[in-house]
Amino acid sequence: MLDESRLAIHQVTLRDQWSFRESIEGFARHGVHTTAVWREKLHEIGAHEAAQILRDHNMTVAGLCPGGLVTSSSGFTAALDDNRRMIEEAATIGAKCVVFISGGLGDGSKDLTAARARTLEAVAALIPEARSVGVMLGIEPLHPMMCANRAVFCTLKQANDWCDELDADDAVGIVLDTYSVWWDPTVAEEIARAGKRICSFHVNDWLEETKDLRLDRGMPGDGVIDIPSIRAMVENAGYSGPCEVEIFSAGNWWRRDPDEVIEIIKERFQTFV
Amino acid sequence: MLDESRLAIHQVTLRDQWSFRESIEGFARHGVHTTAVWREKLHEIGAHEAAQILRDHNMTVAGLCPGGLVTSSSGFTAALDDNRRMIEEAATIGAKCVVFISGGLGDGSKDLTAARARTLEAVAALIPEARSVGVMLGIEPLHPMMCANRAVFCTLKQANDWCDELDADDAVGIVLDTYSVWWDPTVAEEIARAGKRICSFHVNDWLEETKDLRLDRGMPGDGVIDIPSIRAMVENAGYSGPCEVEIFSAGNWWRRDPDEVIEIIKERFQTFV
Repeated sequence: MLDESRLAIHQVTLRDQWSFRESIEGFARHGVHTTAVWREKLHEIGAHEAAQILRDHNMTVAGLCPGGLVTSSSGFTAALDDNRRMIEEAATIGAKCVVFISGGLGDGSKDLTAARARTLEAVAALIPEARSVGVMLGIEPLHPMMCANRAVFCTLKQANDWCDELDADDAVGIVLDTYSVWWDPTVAEEIARAGKRICSFHVNDWLEETKDLRLDRGMPGDGVIDIPSIRAMVENAGYSGPCEVEIFSAGNWWRRDPDEVIEIIKERFQTFV
Repeated sequence: MLDESRLAIHQVTLRDQWSFRESIEGFARHGVHTTAVWREKLHEIGAHEAAQILRDHNMTVAGLCPGGLVTSSSGFTAALDDNRRMIEEAATIGAKCVVFISGGLGDGSKDLTAARARTLEAVAALIPEARSVGVMLGIEPLHPMMCANRAVFCTLKQANDWCDELDADDAVGIVLDTYSVWWDPTVAEEIARAGKRICSFHVNDWLEETKDLRLDRGMPGDGVIDIPSIRAMVENAGYSGPCEVEIFSAGNWWRRDPDEVIEIIKERFQTFV
């Protein structure tokens, strides 16, 4: 039987089919009452109207995505300001965390060390704002294949190292995505090490014949990730929140009938998550 | 000035243009006297004829690729036998090492732990043969995005952990490829830890807009990897062998005039390697 209290569907999973309002109405119609908000959709209507729609549908918001993107040296200050606005938006819609990805190398740079240092500096700088409104900064390592253009921050070990260094577990958590970490030989030990730092858990599958580095993720059950095993590690580490189904899929799931997609997610959730 | 003693060009870099013989003749014509042999090309003519062609052109062979591919549980014994044949071939052509990649999950399995255990078991089993003919087993972690279908063995840390466990540094070395490790936050410490275990060094670049997970690698200088910095780490660790330019590129370099490709490699080598 479907444990609806654990299932969340991320708005981006229906990115090309539904507006902000349509997706919240759709999730509620299918009995799904936890979501994560895609910021581009939030900006269609603004945080206050979004908050009203979420309340009207009794929707819990696990996170607001994506934040961060702070690696450009010339754009660092502007990026920080944008993250401050995002933290306010998250507070307005009642999101538990902002999902913070680092950004890629950018600016024609090859200096990973500097880009990573700017990322850590940004997280540290945003702690006071996050703390003051009670929103977690959820730092999310992405898959290493995204390192050049999306996320120089790309391993769970680095997430733990940074959390150690920041020493602010009340304000900074770790967002774990099965897609980003499943290959990592240290995944079990680093999840155990993360423990209650894990503030958000994203699930989706790795397709054996992946056609695109960013937008060809799979529905749980269609790929090779042993998701229940990773979920067990996460829950043994102390996480008891929702499993957010988040699928970037330009060629398949973003083209399908959205109600059908949700029904398939609910079915797969019982066996493959 | 080009240090020709350090430049090697891997046969696979001209995979679609040149046969075994044509590539060895071509490299020699351009003053390149170190290569790595692509096994498929070797099988065009057999190891004995290949050895003669290599000798005739005064060609040093850094490695024979790819070996391994031992993760299938049903095909494990056959794969081991094939690796034994490959070690003999390597000895016949005077290759310093066989480049051993693990293989993907295969067989519809999601069990990474088991596939990795089979890989380690295979390496251990092949040590006596490798030792008896004086050929190194060069274990090569591939980029994590290859984990599902090509290499469950995908980090330099795991390479070092396995070398520690095998305790056979005279027979098992590590093959390092800039493409596979550049993103890794632990790359500096793991290269230092590898030290003289590094028996082969492959160079190529990560294109910011990578279009294919396996066959869209870049020419040094066209991407974001700070190759000279990784080369410095490798040489500080004690490696003094050639830098093998190895480019899988179905859409670009495999379609270009091969003599032009070699001239570009020689030019780029001076600035970007």
